[in-house]
Amino acid sequence: MTYELYYWDGIPGRGEFVRLALEQAGADYVDVVREEGGTARMMAVLKGRTKGFVPFAPPFLKDGDLLISHVANILLHLGGKLGLAPKDEAGRLEANSLQLSITDFVAEIHDVHHPIGVSLYYEDQKEEALRRAEDFRDERLPKFLGYYEGQLGKNAKGEIHAVGETLTYVDLSLFHVVEGLHYAFPKAIAAAEPDYPMLVGLHAQVKALPNIKAYLASGRRLAFNEQGIFRHYPELDRA
Amino acid sequence: MTYELYYWDGIPGRGEFVRLALEQAGADYVDVVREEGGTARMMAVLKGRTKGFVPFAPPFLKDGDLLISHVANILLHLGGKLGLAPKDEAGRLEANSLQLSITDFVAEIHDVHHPIGVSLYYEDQKEEALRRAEDFRDERLPKFLGYYEGQLGKNAKGEIHAVGETLTYVDLSLFHVVEGLHYAFPKAIAAAEPDYPMLVGLHAQVKALPNIKAYLASGRRLAFNEQGIFRHYPELDRA
Repeated sequence: MTYELYYWDGIPGRGEFVRLALEQAGADYVDVVREEGGTARMMAVLKGRTKGFVPFAPPFLKDGDLLISHVANILLHLGGKLGLAPKDEAGRLEANSLQLSITDFVAEIHDVHHPIGVSLYYEDQKEEALRRAEDFRDERLPKFLGYYEGQLGKNAKGEIHAVGETLTYVDLSLFHVVEGLHYAFPKAIAAAEPDYPMLVGLHAQVKALPNIKAYLASGRRLAFNEQGIFRHYPELDRA
Repeated sequence: MTYELYYWDGIPGRGEFVRLALEQAGADYVDVVREEGGTARMMAVLKGRTKGFVPFAPPFLKDGDLLISHVANILLHLGGKLGLAPKDEAGRLEANSLQLSITDFVAEIHDVHHPIGVSLYYEDQKEEALRRAEDFRDERLPKFLGYYEGQLGKNAKGEIHAVGETLTYVDLSLFHVVEGLHYAFPKAIAAAEPDYPMLVGLHAQVKALPNIKAYLASGRRLAFNEQGIFRHYPELDRA
């Protein structure tokens, strides 16, 4: 069965967390919107013109008759099937807890450049973004990174993993968050990284996985840009 | 086995979504922080002084040896055990998709009064909150309410339910969101409600459930106030 991933074209966005899991597992999938006529197919689902569940927003995944929205839910579903989740219940719940903290972190990262509203351009909320960016760099960034560092440190046994002793979708998502932070806030991250050696180690470890390495070098990997979650506006980075 | 719910005392907050499920099911639970010494017990977990998983933030639930954070994850876990989730896989995934959309909505509702940062007081971001509130009332509120109205309408067969043909935790959460919106934005909601008859109907239906009714009348139900997610600042409501 071919998985169908539905997400906006042109940005890594939230779809990327799903893509990384599919790619690492070598799963058979199509990135629907990047195919001929794909946007129309996605919009038909979002407009409720198809049978079944209507998701609030992309990304969503079709797995046969199942339609699943929200990154954490998709990864919870795929995790077991792709061998990227703990096998025990406590581990599965822990992975989902961690993934949901990443959901929160990603929303906060997005809102740094959109503190007033997603319906407005960045240019219409630049002043507010400057204030929010300061709070983000000083308070939220160290809080989240410190949390993951603690989690990775507690769990370290040789290889670095967020949950259990094997690679999970949480590790892949943390890799992508670090990638995105490097793109969006290169100075803040360069200054912060010495405090988070486990996270730096996990990032390097995931980047070197053969399937991930091949994916990152492929045309399937979309570049970060100023339409997505992680945007590089130098004025929002550390001075 | 007694469930242990850990959440800040004094506000309904995100803990309320879990409480409503436990109350409706008549489950045996303790609201740990509202007991003698409870805050210290919660802080010990959050500071990593206990064995096992450290959650990012409350609410979290202890179910025997399991420690589960994030509302959607807790409800996913409890849903099946308490008979408040669909029994089929498609329904369970749909319930989780919907609950995660509520997570997003609740975060946006919170950020109306905290557009710049949670570490700052409302008074320090009032100007920005006024702008965000306008965008929220004009764009986001109708988008989310319209989404749930469509979902309830598609699914209506006699009683109103968000997923399947029985009461689920999603219905309870939607009830609480409507309650909270009435508290925080009474004028905006009064103006909007005629457009969302299914949501109004679901709210009334949940409010009349015997266990919910008894709970709402009890001392266990905390009142909304200006420390929580749903805050009534008249200047942020419709004029």
